[in-house]
Formats: sequence, C-alpha cells, structure tokens
Amino acid sequence: MPHIALEQGVPGIVSAFAFRPETARPMRELAEVLLRGPSSLSSADRETIAAFVSNRNECRFCQLSHSAAAAEHLGGEDQHYALIDAVKADLDAAAITPKLKALLRIAGKVQVGGKQVTAADVATARAEGATDVEIHDTVLIAAAFCMYNRYVDGLATWQPEDAAGYRPMGKRMAHEGYMRPS
Amino acid sequence: MPHIALEQGVPGIVSAFAFRPETARPMRELAEVLLRGPSSLSSADRETIAAFVSNRNECRFCQLSHSAAAAEHLGGEDQHYALIDAVKADLDAAAITPKLKALLRIAGKVQVGGKQVTAADVATARAEGATDVEIHDTVLIAAAFCMYNRYVDGLATWQPEDAAGYRPMGKRMAHEGYMRPS
Repeated sequence: MPHIALEQGVPGIVSAFAFRPETARPMRELAEVLLRGPSSLSSADRETIAAFVSNRNECRFCQLSHSAAAAEHLGGEDQHYALIDAVKADLDAAAITPKLKALLRIAGKVQVGGKQVTAADVATARAEGATDVEIHDTVLIAAAFCMYNRYVDGLATWQPEDAAGYRPMGKRMAHEGYMRPS
Repeated sequence: MPHIALEQGVPGIVSAFAFRPETARPMRELAEVLLRGPSSLSSADRETIAAFVSNRNECRFCQLSHSAAAAEHLGGEDQHYALIDAVKADLDAAAITPKLKALLRIAGKVQVGGKQVTAADVATARAEGATDVEIHDTVLIAAAFCMYNRYVDGLATWQPEDAAGYRPMGKRMAHEGYMRPS
C-alpha cells in the first residue's frame, strides 16, 4: 500500500505525478529532454542507461518500464528485450558497442555516488568515441534515475506484478514520450 | 579539474547548467517548486532537508550552499548557521521540532534507498502533524538531491574552497531563487 493517498491502481510514478502536478511538470520535461530530446546518443542507448541504473537501484517499476522502452526503440521484438536483459545481467559480455559499455560503466559509478567517477573512466569513454555532451548526459541520466527510483519506491507506489504488463507501457514511453498528463 | 569542458571558475551546478541549458531548465524549475514554491513546509525546513541529504551524500558544494540557504531563510545570523550545522551533526539532539525531525529521518532513509522508508516512519511523521503533501515533498526533495549531488560530483565540477564563499550563494538562493539563468 502506498505511504500516502495516491490513487488506487495507477502504476508507479504516474500516481505520484497525479498527486503533485507542480513537481510532475519539470520531472516529465527532464525525462523527455534526457531520453527523447535531440542527441547524438540514440534513445535506445539512453533508455538502456536508465534501465541499467534502475536495476542497480532495485527499482522494479522503473527497471521493467525503461527496459521495455529501450527494447521498443530497438524494434520491440523478443531479441531486443533479451539484449537489454543481457546488459543488466552481465555488462562485460553483452553484445553492445564498446562506447555504450564505457558509458554504462560511468553510469554504474554515478549510481553508487558522484565521486566514484574517475578521470580514467571518462578517458576510456572518450577513447571509444564519446563526446563531452554524451558523457554529460550519461552522468545526468544516471543521477536522474537515482531520483526517479527513490521517488517511486520511497512513496511505496502501486506497481503491476506481471512483467508482461510493462511492454505496452514501454511502447508508449518510447513512441509517445513523457509529456502526457497521465 | 572537471571531467568535461565546463567553464573555468563557475561554481558547481551552475557550470553544468550553463553547459546544457536544455536540461538546466527543468532542473531549475524543480528546485524552485520544491524549495520555494507554495507549501505548508517553510522554505527553511525544505532547504534543511536538502542540506541534510547533501551532507549524507558527501556533496560539499550542495551541502554548504543549501545549508546557507536554510540559514538565510531563518534570518542569516551565526546562530541560524549553527542550527543547520547541528542538524547535520546530530539530528536527535538538534533544537528543531519533532515534526521536522521525523521528516528528516524519512529523508535519511530515502538517501540510502527508496525501499528503506517504512510505514512506521511515515506514521511517526503523521503523528507529529505531517500531511501527505509534506511527506511527499520530503521524499521528493531527498530523491532530487540524490540527483543534484551526483550531477555536481559526477562531473567533478569546480567548487569554491572557502566555506565563507557559500554565504552569499545561499543568500541569493534563498531570496532570488533558482530560475536565474546563471
């Protein structure tokens, strides 16, 4: 049961956004800019970073929904869902580019704490072709999901049990975005 | 030295905001609504929560600047700065209301992880007079500073060494707010 009077049956962060529209607006806009705004990183890559950090924070709602959004950006077939699962399960072995791996390693450090990121981590990402804006956005996506994850779980929001229920959610997030009012 | 090409001599989050105005806009708006928007919690209390969480995250820049903002909201005298320092040093012993103590304990749980917050923590805050919106805002301020803190330190932003330099910063944050472009 949620810790405060959130609407019954409304999933995860959506119920918290409905409870407090004043804070929902900038939080939705930040997600939209970070995950779907103009960027040299694909939305699939950016959603993968969000899913990876949410998994490390053990936030099931964000983890499953952003994994689904990443997979939907890639095409939405089972193989795409399997790829995102592989990234979360074993980053070193996953079949993604060395550049995305280097960015995910930075994101993993940010999840633990900002000071964990070293000049060597950043140099490795840069050697794999990452730009300063891409490194910036990786740090901020990871930091922002340390907020969204804590918000969702800190209020004990209601969340769908069935993992399959997150596919339509991910599809909407990928293709319609984060600015919808509900 | 910052990990990416942030402007020299511009302090902390301000340099990161200048680097990426697209993400700065919603992040500034969120801070403004959370810390200075209409609320039954005073801005002093809300800035105290921000300072408390930033201290737990060992983010010196945010910790000193938001402590100063909290103290400036209280009147800006040495005794006000001392009170905020006392809250960070020993919450149990600090001369603040039982309600703010209960909210700060929730914020401390959120800093560790969202799932740390228990129904008992929330019941205690409610018994001290906290409303659902106040509990919501406490969780979100704590969550948001887990973002701002990681953003500031994950980019290794430049920060003033001298603690006294944070007083004018806190004064501006308290009285002019967070929507200024720089």
